[in-house]
Amino acid sequence: LGVSERCLVDGRAGTVDPSDRGLQYGDGLFETLPLIDGRARRLELHMARLEEGCARLGIAFPGRDTVLSDIARLGAGAGRAVVKIIVTRAAGGRGYRGGDGEPTRIATLHAWPDYPRAWASEGVVVRLCALRIADQPVLAGLKHLNRLEQVLARREWHDEEIAEGLLCSPRGHVVCGTMSNVFAARAGRLLTPRLDRSGVAGTVRSWVLDWARRSAVPCEETELTVEDLLRADELFLTNAIIGLWPVKRLDDCQLPGQWPARWPVGPLARRILQALD
Amino acid sequence: LGVSERCLVDGRAGTVDPSDRGLQYGDGLFETLPLIDGRARRLELHMARLEEGCARLGIAFPGRDTVLSDIARLGAGAGRAVVKIIVTRAAGGRGYRGGDGEPTRIATLHAWPDYPRAWASEGVVVRLCALRIADQPVLAGLKHLNRLEQVLARREWHDEEIAEGLLCSPRGHVVCGTMSNVFAARAGRLLTPRLDRSGVAGTVRSWVLDWARRSAVPCEETELTVEDLLRADELFLTNAIIGLWPVKRLDDCQLPGQWPARWPVGPLARRILQALD
Repeated sequence: LGVSERCLVDGRAGTVDPSDRGLQYGDGLFETLPLIDGRARRLELHMARLEEGCARLGIAFPGRDTVLSDIARLGAGAGRAVVKIIVTRAAGGRGYRGGDGEPTRIATLHAWPDYPRAWASEGVVVRLCALRIADQPVLAGLKHLNRLEQVLARREWHDEEIAEGLLCSPRGHVVCGTMSNVFAARAGRLLTPRLDRSGVAGTVRSWVLDWARRSAVPCEETELTVEDLLRADELFLTNAIIGLWPVKRLDDCQLPGQWPARWPVGPLARRILQALD
Repeated sequence: LGVSERCLVDGRAGTVDPSDRGLQYGDGLFETLPLIDGRARRLELHMARLEEGCARLGIAFPGRDTVLSDIARLGAGAGRAVVKIIVTRAAGGRGYRGGDGEPTRIATLHAWPDYPRAWASEGVVVRLCALRIADQPVLAGLKHLNRLEQVLARREWHDEEIAEGLLCSPRGHVVCGTMSNVFAARAGRLLTPRLDRSGVAGTVRSWVLDWARRSAVPCEETELTVEDLLRADELFLTNAIIGLWPVKRLDDCQLPGQWPARWPVGPLARRILQALD
């Protein structure tokens, strides 16, 4: 693919206006979609979240057809790849006020990330991040462009064997991974952190919650401590690109005492992995 | 000025790579400098904050000479204007990890904002924002690009008579305005909110703290409630462009009970206004 086909700004090959509020203030939202055979998976969940995010931030939603057209153009002939869609409030102006112009749409095509295959089949090692994710109910759940917390948390480790870092709230509840949502299973029940104070409401998280409802698997959005995770029978992570990664071990460097922080790939993870396919 | 002289990206007229981490994640910092007769005021305070911000976020500082060169080029013949400098971690990559490339420098020239002259001489009306600014010690004090809280707070009001909105912490302490720092004076003492959990450490705020030290005016960085502000003899706001605005009235629509939320332009504000000139 030529560069011109890999990035569309408002539907045209191009670069971004430096005055764009996405750059100036992180005043926008994004979606990261998996393409399989050039077609986006779970497209409806991504479109619904983007539209809801625009509504919550007061950004004009560019319209599904417009966004879908960008995705289709980038996806044509792409095979297995990743499309990222950014929608910002507008270009222009200095100062927090303003942004009455048209929203900016930036669609980019990326190579599928080369995570080890064993991470999905045998599970991953995760760690606890030192950075606490701030409580901000106004932004909770949104996939917005203010992601310095995730950037800084991801900079805490360099060990290639560690796939993800878990983030806790100031009060010590596990919220999410830097790029994923967290699920625990205990006695046949699925548990996942509530996201009313922070975190991104992932599309696969939504899908799993819906799957559990359809499959009559008890499932609860709740507050989970690290100790709750350690007592779980299964632990797994979800995001749009990875789908589901079982967690096989929590790196214990920062844990108080000696915990048996290891899990098998459990029956619920297997069922969900199969259903996701 | 032609467009090419109003925006420098890495020292050249240009646009921004859509992969830039400033856009993707708000992964960067900014400075807004006043130009008087084409020369930046309080330049050293801006450079020091930018360099410290880069160090705290782990972004390579582009170097003072490089940044100063951008400012000088934009300032040449500009008269009274505003220069905004953005430094982002790097262009390229998808995912929170990465950004090992060179930092991006974006320097833009803007018209001086046309605030009413009476706002500096007679004071402004401010309001209390409903949005609570989140506690995030890791980012507190930094002028980083994650500014959705300020954008959303500024969207709370449309009344042109209201110059600024004050933001409180989740525990109800006043932290800052959407674009300014807050000072109160009581019995000859200056008080300003501590910024160890949130807020931007403004250059004029630093200047005032230093002025107070030099002038033997007692001054304290502390926790201030709205009630503390209401009991103050003077109240004023600072930022790099406005310098100092006395507050003449706190819009009472959201205050419990009836408060005499009005202040004169007091002696400390007058002294600081004079010293700032």
